[in-house]
Amino acid sequence: MLFDKLALEPLFEKIDELQPAFIDRLRRSIAIPSVSSDESLRPKVVEMAAFLVNELTTLGFADIQLKDLGKQPPPVNNPDLLLPPIVLARFGNDEKKKTVLVYGHYDVQPAGLEDGWASEPFEMTHDEQAGILYGRGSTDDKGPVMGWLNVVEAHNALGWELPVNLVVCFEGMEESGSLGLDGLIAREAKNYFKGVDAVCISDNYWLGTTKPVLTYGLRGCNYYQVLISGPGADLHSGIFGGVVAEPMTDLVQVLSLLVSSDGTILVPGIDEMVAKLTPEEDALYDDIDFSVDELQAALGSKTALYDNKKDILKHRWRYPSLSIHGVEGAFSGAGAKTVIPAKVTGKFSIRTVPDIDLAKLDLLVFAHVTKAFKQLNSKNQMKVELIHDGDYWKSDPFNESFTAASKATEHVWNVKPDFTREGGSIPITLTFEKELGTQVLLLPMGRGDDGAHSINEKLNVSNYINGCKTLGGYLHYYGQ
Amino acid sequence: MLFDKLALEPLFEKIDELQPAFIDRLRRSIAIPSVSSDESLRPKVVEMAAFLVNELTTLGFADIQLKDLGKQPPPVNNPDLLLPPIVLARFGNDEKKKTVLVYGHYDVQPAGLEDGWASEPFEMTHDEQAGILYGRGSTDDKGPVMGWLNVVEAHNALGWELPVNLVVCFEGMEESGSLGLDGLIAREAKNYFKGVDAVCISDNYWLGTTKPVLTYGLRGCNYYQVLISGPGADLHSGIFGGVVAEPMTDLVQVLSLLVSSDGTILVPGIDEMVAKLTPEEDALYDDIDFSVDELQAALGSKTALYDNKKDILKHRWRYPSLSIHGVEGAFSGAGAKTVIPAKVTGKFSIRTVPDIDLAKLDLLVFAHVTKAFKQLNSKNQMKVELIHDGDYWKSDPFNESFTAASKATEHVWNVKPDFTREGGSIPITLTFEKELGTQVLLLPMGRGDDGAHSINEKLNVSNYINGCKTLGGYLHYYGQ
Repeated sequence: MLFDKLALEPLFEKIDELQPAFIDRLRRSIAIPSVSSDESLRPKVVEMAAFLVNELTTLGFADIQLKDLGKQPPPVNNPDLLLPPIVLARFGNDEKKKTVLVYGHYDVQPAGLEDGWASEPFEMTHDEQAGILYGRGSTDDKGPVMGWLNVVEAHNALGWELPVNLVVCFEGMEESGSLGLDGLIAREAKNYFKGVDAVCISDNYWLGTTKPVLTYGLRGCNYYQVLISGPGADLHSGIFGGVVAEPMTDLVQVLSLLVSSDGTILVPGIDEMVAKLTPEEDALYDDIDFSVDELQAALGSKTALYDNKKDILKHRWRYPSLSIHGVEGAFSGAGAKTVIPAKVTGKFSIRTVPDIDLAKLDLLVFAHVTKAFKQLNSKNQMKVELIHDGDYWKSDPFNESFTAASKATEHVWNVKPDFTREGGSIPITLTFEKELGTQVLLLPMGRGDDGAHSINEKLNVSNYINGCKTLGGYLHYYGQ
Repeated sequence: MLFDKLALEPLFEKIDELQPAFIDRLRRSIAIPSVSSDESLRPKVVEMAAFLVNELTTLGFADIQLKDLGKQPPPVNNPDLLLPPIVLARFGNDEKKKTVLVYGHYDVQPAGLEDGWASEPFEMTHDEQAGILYGRGSTDDKGPVMGWLNVVEAHNALGWELPVNLVVCFEGMEESGSLGLDGLIAREAKNYFKGVDAVCISDNYWLGTTKPVLTYGLRGCNYYQVLISGPGADLHSGIFGGVVAEPMTDLVQVLSLLVSSDGTILVPGIDEMVAKLTPEEDALYDDIDFSVDELQAALGSKTALYDNKKDILKHRWRYPSLSIHGVEGAFSGAGAKTVIPAKVTGKFSIRTVPDIDLAKLDLLVFAHVTKAFKQLNSKNQMKVELIHDGDYWKSDPFNESFTAASKATEHVWNVKPDFTREGGSIPITLTFEKELGTQVLLLPMGRGDDGAHSINEKLNVSNYINGCKTLGGYLHYYGQ
């Protein structure tokens, strides 16, 4: 162990030395607004794939492939819209070494100054005093993706071989349901991905802001929309208010029957599918380093639904939740517009946990929404549909891969990581595990307050640089 | 009577002759996106005022004034935002003639191709085969405003004097609560508007699509917003779903308690303020030329709340209605975004009728919303406020001004107009009546299916040109 630690010092020093170049790489990647959910920005997502190909080529990766995934399935505005390609590449091909596949995504959530960002979201802002890098994708997931490239660059600069064969798989649709990725993994399991021993994904966050974690469980996410339509076009509420069935009135009624203000899901039958809490599992939550204060700080408010650590962790990790995200088609601007919207679409999603059956969940949601709408006796039309889904995942935190990551983390941060689960979903975790039959490790880089999917998304410089060291260290400990 | 009809023939022929110039005037006015509710477009609203000044000057109007109304009161994003000016001008100052004040507004509702317009809303499209002019403001209210200018141009071209002294009052905030206009009318009642005998407003529509109407009643409109806020910024629903009180969950609950799908307002105490329906009033609805089919055609759907003419007319004219217009701050785009919005604002309005007391209505709404939110026991913050209001109005359809308009309409269209009320609000109607102590007449130009406030707003060429004749004819019959 002592040997390992000393052996890694040159690598860590090189990473420190290359910090300016690594920050510049992140800056260049953030400058490309690769928003996968905005069809008009699809060319930028493709541009981001080309950016990666260029970086991989320069670093000496081999067998670089852009995997075409064909057209994006409905619902889409443009029926000919192509999915962004999946970027595959490998570094090293030594049969004596283990092979690690690292996954990341190069697409990002939407962002705009009008949402309340303090600075242009697609121009990285470096607060040198605070040591923080702001920008859309900084922590989710461009920071970690650049992290893997940085690890290779540091080895190259030292003239070192990598301790493992590295295979990278970077996708461009993670924020929009990872469309096409499942199929690709299935197709490549025995081809491009043949011989992979372990999969490492860096696409989540520490639980809090001070202690590193390794993650062995994720919630899934089923995303639904309820579309209610009536009039042929938007109407003036003065002329038609009171004489027409208003879609927005119906939608609000339906949405109000999904979840109560205390977080209780009102769709019957879901609770019954959730795995019962055992005394053993209950005890696990005692030791996690986390506090209600930390949650309130991340929230920026005192609006947590629970006042104790254990309830918070359980509701984040092992119970489902339902969020209403918004309404498409209604008036959404500032000021006052006296419109009766003709067609409105409510968006909501359910975070899933063991042992919820996704197909059964869909049926329960469809039945509940259909019944709720029917009770309204409305003359409008209603359609409820699943936009995308991804199952939950739970692994063994004591396997070989987690043990290597634990050693690397402790080496870099001088503290044993907490073993945590996550509320968010990375559906592909499960797919890799099933299709490749390998261990999957979640090794986060950013902190719990990074604001992924929110305004002013950030990554601390210390997390970025120590994160690179941890990723590199993991490859060495695992490669032994 | 026979004399009058013959006497007006040259005027009507001149209007026909000038049709191309009149259509071009409308085209030029539509090209200016004078959207009063969009602060960023305020310079365009001011540009539209300048356009009017130029036209009025060219036509020989005198005493042209741009009345400064100062800063726009909160809520505004820019606290220094200036209100657009009110344009005043007069044509003729003969003490032997009566004086008619004509009011119109030069601002418009928002519009964009992304709302579903078939053509660019701020470029007028002339469908010559169908005889239809498409564009934002074509019918509401740039068509009628240009109509008054056209009447003067036709008189000038004939070398005729106007039969009355004309005073014009054109405002730029009608679509945003007519801010500042009440005060201006009060200030100018004994100054610029001194000696006005009648006010004519052309800013509403026929009930249907074939028969002209004169309008003697309007509903008012109180526009409210409910703001619910919690977290300091938008959150990722994976990380925080289930552990934070979500503002959107609360908002949906509150909005669901405002109105039911059959149109019933759920705020207690409003019904009690509505004037009781007498058998005499009930009988009035028998003779109006209107059908359920006509409504369904205007709706573009079979989603009317009532299946008979009388109920429809009553709910449009003499009963209040509540419409939910949308939500500001939530996800409103296409696709799927897994956000927990931090601050959401629900927008709704109530159309008011005799004898609803506006101040009392506000108190009832505030109390109901406050109670609804309190019942949720939410940790979020809620604020409900009035954005703008305007009272209802009801006049005597047999006075001198209505009688002149009735004769002019019959002359142009060869049919006696229906006397109707309107569901929409033109709050200023009431202010003119009170402050000037004069009769106010509503003389509409467009049809019931023109799509004011909606996509593909239009004005039929026949309505535009015959509308000019009717406006001109009204001045002659009233001037006698």
